[in-house]
Amino acid sequence: MSTSQNQLVIDVTALTASGIGDAGPDAATLAMLAEPARRALDTTLDRRSRGEIGFLDLPDDRATARACMDYARNLDADIDTVVVLGIGGSSLGPRALYSALARPFDQLAPRSPGMPRRLFFPDNIDPVTFAALLDRVSLDKTLWNVVTKSGGTAETAAQLLVVMDRLEKHLGAERAKRHVVCTTDPAKGALRATAKARGLAAFDIPPNVGGRFSVLSPVGLLPAALAGLDVMGLLDGARRMRDRALVPDLAKNPALLLATLLHHHHLTRGRPIHVMMSYVDGLYDTADWFRQLWAESLGKEKATDGRTVNVGPTPVAARGATDQHSQLQLYAEGPDDKVFLMLGTKHRGVELTMPGGPLAESQAEYSYLAGRGMGELLDAELLGTTSSLIRRKRPVAQLALERVSAEAVGELLMLLEAATALAGPLYGVDPFDQPGVEEAKRLAFAALGRPGYEELRTEMDKAPGPDPAYVL
Amino acid sequence: MSTSQNQLVIDVTALTASGIGDAGPDAATLAMLAEPARRALDTTLDRRSRGEIGFLDLPDDRATARACMDYARNLDADIDTVVVLGIGGSSLGPRALYSALARPFDQLAPRSPGMPRRLFFPDNIDPVTFAALLDRVSLDKTLWNVVTKSGGTAETAAQLLVVMDRLEKHLGAERAKRHVVCTTDPAKGALRATAKARGLAAFDIPPNVGGRFSVLSPVGLLPAALAGLDVMGLLDGARRMRDRALVPDLAKNPALLLATLLHHHHLTRGRPIHVMMSYVDGLYDTADWFRQLWAESLGKEKATDGRTVNVGPTPVAARGATDQHSQLQLYAEGPDDKVFLMLGTKHRGVELTMPGGPLAESQAEYSYLAGRGMGELLDAELLGTTSSLIRRKRPVAQLALERVSAEAVGELLMLLEAATALAGPLYGVDPFDQPGVEEAKRLAFAALGRPGYEELRTEMDKAPGPDPAYVL
Repeated sequence: MSTSQNQLVIDVTALTASGIGDAGPDAATLAMLAEPARRALDTTLDRRSRGEIGFLDLPDDRATARACMDYARNLDADIDTVVVLGIGGSSLGPRALYSALARPFDQLAPRSPGMPRRLFFPDNIDPVTFAALLDRVSLDKTLWNVVTKSGGTAETAAQLLVVMDRLEKHLGAERAKRHVVCTTDPAKGALRATAKARGLAAFDIPPNVGGRFSVLSPVGLLPAALAGLDVMGLLDGARRMRDRALVPDLAKNPALLLATLLHHHHLTRGRPIHVMMSYVDGLYDTADWFRQLWAESLGKEKATDGRTVNVGPTPVAARGATDQHSQLQLYAEGPDDKVFLMLGTKHRGVELTMPGGPLAESQAEYSYLAGRGMGELLDAELLGTTSSLIRRKRPVAQLALERVSAEAVGELLMLLEAATALAGPLYGVDPFDQPGVEEAKRLAFAALGRPGYEELRTEMDKAPGPDPAYVL
Repeated sequence: MSTSQNQLVIDVTALTASGIGDAGPDAATLAMLAEPARRALDTTLDRRSRGEIGFLDLPDDRATARACMDYARNLDADIDTVVVLGIGGSSLGPRALYSALARPFDQLAPRSPGMPRRLFFPDNIDPVTFAALLDRVSLDKTLWNVVTKSGGTAETAAQLLVVMDRLEKHLGAERAKRHVVCTTDPAKGALRATAKARGLAAFDIPPNVGGRFSVLSPVGLLPAALAGLDVMGLLDGARRMRDRALVPDLAKNPALLLATLLHHHHLTRGRPIHVMMSYVDGLYDTADWFRQLWAESLGKEKATDGRTVNVGPTPVAARGATDQHSQLQLYAEGPDDKVFLMLGTKHRGVELTMPGGPLAESQAEYSYLAGRGMGELLDAELLGTTSSLIRRKRPVAQLALERVSAEAVGELLMLLEAATALAGPLYGVDPFDQPGVEEAKRLAFAALGRPGYEELRTEMDKAPGPDPAYVL
């Protein structure tokens, strides 16, 4: 069911003086922020027009979406399970979609005809977990979606080598091919070469779409289609938000306004910790996906002008009401170094009513709940926590989905991607690179004894080891 | 298999000048920190001797552990599933134990005789999730462990009301009783009263053990026993670490040294964000449990001497290698405002070897992996990331479990509990209260229309609402 109405309401009142008084910027301050905001948008649009930034155009590519849906439709009906082999952006995006839009605990249900396929996202290489997963799925009924933009990601290569060996031994080389589909660069890298050499099905990640901005490419759309989610609705919502995110007027552009306010609270007001707290279980993984987007895009040593800045906000994912019993004490009373982004929904779709009767009536701590809904209680807690933070003049943005639909999720994901891209120029950094992770990779290769890293290994071996005085 | 050997090695070299040069304290600075550390230990021991702090003595209470094991052993053999109804400390502790020590994906396995019981921790009241869980478990085969120290926790009361109604309708009032076991205060509160009135089985949480320090009380031990975990091994490890944590010599007390160094890096060196990054999937939930412990204990508005301090570190849970593809860019290149606690293990118990052969040989990005283990790669990545952070003079503590055994986990949990308790006096705050969460609760009750909160509701209704200029 497509609609042209916005499915996501962004309320930033409590990021401003209107909500938190002198703890936030007033209208005059915001007016002064319009000019840098406008420049950030121009920078981003320039790069888009030069073909450097692809994510903004993904919602228009319906042919790729249809190809994903066709692949899913034509897949062997016996295949009831999909495992996404990938890490980081290759896993966080599709997992966010699946958690938001599929039924919880569906992975536990005994499979029956007509049920949507279940998805797994190991997202790591702990052999304890991976071996247990291999024991738990049937190789005859499982499709492995191997996802890596570069093609050479070590963890994904490791997963692929182990799985391919098992598949070929169990199914034979020919049948095994039908159980693997690749998502990678259209031309480059080890996975593309492997797909070509072995005749594996493969989908393209556009070269100008980086891993953490790839959720609306086949990285997210193929798993979504395989799980029977509403792929077109997702793109409809994303397109609608994309159009709003390109409006030059700061006051009318939710992504630009959010980026501007978060940057202002960080660098002008000393609030570097940005907490996304979801009061919808299914959107917690969206908060975790946002964690990568915000951290990896904005956490940089060098500014684009070459200066050393060591800048970047620290994103935190939290869950309401759960984290009221874990993090709220710190959020409410600790240092005023945080901004809060609260996620809620107006219609949960499912409600559980607390019944009246002898048990409810037996205790004052139960009786006020009788006849009320669990979702109603959760909404009241969202309101209570939000109000409590605002009373303490802690800055809070409120993001409310009309319902947890594909369209609303599409709007939310594009809002956060666009806000991240726009925050890059505000922070003075390139939001699309990640130079700082290379060293750890090279050191890991050296530790593992990978050919070509011998010199680094020698260097590592010379580093001072543990000091016995400090090993307990 | 009990052992008297320490199963956890704590290496804090790279929190000191020995590892990171002038980015950490040298031996002379540490010598000056010994006196405040000693006072923090004395304060804690004083409170323990006055009976105010119970968690340190839990490892000695073997009678309670045996009672939990007896309950588990005598439980109806048909019961193959346990759902823990609780939130915050009532859920995080047992979930940490289960994730660390049970087999991953065990919840998905078809149940068969002799298998350990599977556990679920909904830990929230999202009706979408809770309804799906209710649909997925069989009421005939499920035990509900209701856990709340105070007895009146709203979310737990809501879960209990919904579950009790279903149980009584499905099984009848008499049989329903055998499917519920309570864990709560020995005398006070709504849940204790309910257990008494209805003849429900019940375990005690000692009055001087707060929720976030309760994992070694029946809060954690009963679910652990129900899942067939090694309860006594857990206590053996915890006792061994407890004894080490009470040694007055800073240089020999791992909990006191860790607390002292984290406090120093925070308040003297401006590193308020404390990241626990687990390179063992099963210990990620231990990092999440630590998040509550560290945040709720130390995030305080008021010092114990009455001053307004608004203090507290922000803990973050991360997973390696996964978060190398999400957070490492920020950790390596962003602001130098973090301390890292890396969790690893020397023996994973399970290994998956990447096979050689045509696929491995076809690409340079694969071939170096042939013949190596997934766990070996993960260990190399832990070393690579740790080395990369240390080269950048970012402070890193390394916690290595000999293997992920009950004893090692017991040591780890007690280390972190004791470090938290000792950090309280260092920060000048009471680590055992949480006054800041009350307001949000009262506001939620007011929003829900709970009797007695009418005045607050009126006050809330008068608060300024969203400013239309800032709602997009």
